[in-house]
Parts: sequence; C-alpha cells; structure tokens
Amino acid sequence: MQQLITHITAYSSATPDNLDRIGDFFEVRTFKKRELLLQEGQRCHEKFFVAKGCVHLFYLRQNGVEQTIDFALENWWTSDFMAFQQGGIAQFSIRAVEATEAFVISAARQHDMLSAFPELHEYFHVMFQRAYAASQMRIRKTYELSKEDLYQDFSRNYPAFMQRVPQYLLASFLGFTPEYLSEIRKKFVS
Amino acid sequence: MQQLITHITAYSSATPDNLDRIGDFFEVRTFKKRELLLQEGQRCHEKFFVAKGCVHLFYLRQNGVEQTIDFALENWWTSDFMAFQQGGIAQFSIRAVEATEAFVISAARQHDMLSAFPELHEYFHVMFQRAYAASQMRIRKTYELSKEDLYQDFSRNYPAFMQRVPQYLLASFLGFTPEYLSEIRKKFVS
Repeated sequence: MQQLITHITAYSSATPDNLDRIGDFFEVRTFKKRELLLQEGQRCHEKFFVAKGCVHLFYLRQNGVEQTIDFALENWWTSDFMAFQQGGIAQFSIRAVEATEAFVISAARQHDMLSAFPELHEYFHVMFQRAYAASQMRIRKTYELSKEDLYQDFSRNYPAFMQRVPQYLLASFLGFTPEYLSEIRKKFVS
Repeated sequence: MQQLITHITAYSSATPDNLDRIGDFFEVRTFKKRELLLQEGQRCHEKFFVAKGCVHLFYLRQNGVEQTIDFALENWWTSDFMAFQQGGIAQFSIRAVEATEAFVISAARQHDMLSAFPELHEYFHVMFQRAYAASQMRIRKTYELSKEDLYQDFSRNYPAFMQRVPQYLLASFLGFTPEYLSEIRKKFVS
C-alpha cells in the first residue's frame, strides 16, 4: 500500500503519518494476464489503482468486436466512473493486458475512507482534474489529427505503451485495423 | 454567489453557513454575446462557473476554421484544464454563445480558497469525477455511433442545447458540415 501512499502525498498535501490506515479500506487483488477486473453488463461498485501491470478498458461493439477506449498502467486509477458513481451497470469491461496487481476499493468503502480521511478529497480532486484535462486534449486530437498523426503522437507521448501493449489492442484503441497499423509502422521504421 | 453555494451543497457535504465568504475569492464577470472568456495562445490562469448563459470551447484548425469541442450552460464549470493546472498556454478559446455571467476564479485565488475551505475539495472531486465519467461515455460514442446516431443521441440527451446553440456551432461540435446537419434535421423532422 506504500506505493499508493507515496502517490497520494506526491499529488496532495496529505501527510504520510496519518495515512497508515487507508490500507484497511482496500483489497489487494491479483489478476492473471487476460483476466477481467470488471465485466460490462454487471454492476460496477469498485475502482482500481493499478499497482503493477497494465489493463485495458473496452466495450463490445454490436458486431461482437471488442473496442478498446483506454489503458491504465502503474499508478493510474481506472473504472467505469459513470457506473461507479451511480452504482449502476458497467458499460465497459476492464481486462489485464499483463499479470496485474490492483488496489481495489468499493464505493461504500471509499465513502467510509473519505469520512475518516476527508483530506483525500484533495488527492481525488487533483487526479480527476488531470484525467479530465487529458480527455479534453484527447478529444481535440480526435478532431484534429489524421490516423497517421494519431499514431505518431501516441508513440511520442506514450513510449511505454508501445513496448507493452499488443499490436491488436493498440490498433483497436487508435481506431485502426491491425493491417493498417502494421502498414504505418513499416512506413515509420523504413 | 448564492447559485454557486446551492450547487456546492447539492453535490457535497459542505454546509452553507460556513460558505458565505467564498464570494471573496471570485470575480463576477459579464460577457456579451460572442465575447471571449479565454483566448487560445494566451496564459490560462482562470476557471469559470457559468451562472447564466452559454459558452463554447473551441480551437483554431490549421485551415483557420474554429472547431468546437464542448459547451457549458448554467452551473457548469469550464476552462482549458490542462493549461489551468499547469499555469500554461491555453490550447482552447472559450466564447459566449449568449450574453453570459460567469463566476471567475484564478488558480492562485482557488489555492487560497481551498486552504480556507478544504472541504471544497469534495465538491471539486465530485465535479471532475462527473466530468471525466461523461467524457468516457463521449469517447465511447465517438467510436460507436454513426453521425446520424450522434445527432439523435445529442438531441435526446441535451434538448436545451438544441434550442439555444446556433446550428453552425452544433454542426462543428458534431463534426458535420452545416449542410450535412441541415440534411439530417430535415430527415428527422419529415
């Protein structure tokens, strides 16, 4: 849990000495590669801090193909946040891309934790502001960039992903066919 | 300022009696129709609570056309949040679609306000979680829906916008040409 406490103190004014007990509110869960953390269609009452590993967030298209819309690596929070905040049915699944360890907290336990440690709202305020700010930029890029430019932008900004994420997931995320991604990669390598 | 205090107490456990003084941290500013709240390329150090009116967030495409990526109506917060959090250069402009009144707070004043009222982090935690949750759903829809379906979805979920936002801005937001939007509208009216 030290990893999460370090993250909290890096992004908020909360001090470590009164954070020892937050571990009580989390469950540490490990997922094998390709195991689901969350399944679309089931109630979503948990959010996940990725301590180790990598996951992807996706939904099932009407044609049965999985459409990846996001990833999370170490020190990222992930969930279907609409469902999480409403205690509703998940419209996304989350699956481990690699063997993954996550700190998992339910909405009910988070409520208790924030009652006991209200100063953690500052941390979550900062986390969600950053996430929302990134999504504003992402939406701009989806309007602005060609598919090739999206790929270049992603390679430049997220080199860690390029190493760790299978090509077919990267293609899905970028809205490419795997064949098209393969073509672009050849072009930039040559 | 009562409108903002009502909003804060609706979305957090903060109580009105200790919130009287938050008005000191804000500036109430009015904007004429088409006046800019924020200009792309200038430093962004403010965020805006729309008390009355409607604004749109846009950037200038390389071909000189304005691309609208978002709107904000009454009780919505808006800014270029990446620039706001970093004290950086805005990559978006914000302009009044109608005569607009906004409660404006700078990053420095917000810092002071949150020091004096740390319980407001809860409110901003909730606001940004909601905004980020909505952006997850929006990103899903941009992958999932055809242009016609996007239009129908928008009409269904945001009828207030359909009444208040000029057609050319709505077309820009949906990634349509104004001509294409006009065609779709005729189709659904007939």
